[in-house]
Amino acid sequence: MRYFEDFATGERTTLGSHTMTEAEMLAYARKYDPQSFHIDADAARRSIFGGLIASGWHTCAIVMRLSVEAHRRMDAAGAGSPGVESCRWLKPVRPGDTVTAVTEVLETWPSRSRPIGFARRRTEVTNQHGETVLTLVGISMYRRRDGAGA
Amino acid sequence: MRYFEDFATGERTTLGSHTMTEAEMLAYARKYDPQSFHIDADAARRSIFGGLIASGWHTCAIVMRLSVEAHRRMDAAGAGSPGVESCRWLKPVRPGDTVTAVTEVLETWPSRSRPIGFARRRTEVTNQHGETVLTLVGISMYRRRDGAGA
Repeated sequence: MRYFEDFATGERTTLGSHTMTEAEMLAYARKYDPQSFHIDADAARRSIFGGLIASGWHTCAIVMRLSVEAHRRMDAAGAGSPGVESCRWLKPVRPGDTVTAVTEVLETWPSRSRPIGFARRRTEVTNQHGETVLTLVGISMYRRRDGAGA
Repeated sequence: MRYFEDFATGERTTLGSHTMTEAEMLAYARKYDPQSFHIDADAARRSIFGGLIASGWHTCAIVMRLSVEAHRRMDAAGAGSPGVESCRWLKPVRPGDTVTAVTEVLETWPSRSRPIGFARRRTEVTNQHGETVLTLVGISMYRRRDGAGA
């Protein structure tokens, strides 16, 4: 298993790719982000976006899933996250777009009070044209190798 | 309709409340955030969280929906968001918890290049015990009253 001690500054990991279908974009947006440019193709065409776009929170959710799957492949001892320091939706994600997420460890530090450690990560998400559509800087927590609370 | 010009610094709005059921927490997490403490009650009990907790992204998604509904009630000319500057998952959200979101406009400024304006908002989410479970600082975009591109 990969514990906190096994993550090093500068480590880059390709989390994976996902092609966003219109159906899943609509399903997410109807449930969580029913703004017209996310759920109504006609209204979206007339909007400043010129067509349907994914909810930014949906793109984040897809990145989260790719991250969980990547952490599972590396058998990482993930212990959640206290938050995100920056999330920038730079370009719209449209039906059929394939997004690819790559993450880099910016910094690591141990908790003083709990048997875990923190990694600050920057995750960059690009589309099939090589354009960056989303950047995320967030904190991941991992159990420590010698963690009593594991 | 409420346009960019109608949002003022200091304006506070209660977006609404939502009670998180275990079923919806599991449904979201199985799809987007399948970490064991979000999808497996037994594993969650043995984790540092002591029981099932909602994916933080799920709580954000619920806040987004409450925000869309509140903006619809006030007939706001929302035009998306370029991103979030801070998202802090301060306390776990557990099955049966009722979360309430209140948002405050911190600052507004017009776009120089497009017929929209920006509002920086701080949104605080509390549970039924009055504990803050999530804070979000993000940017909302609104169409301008005289917007040619509306």
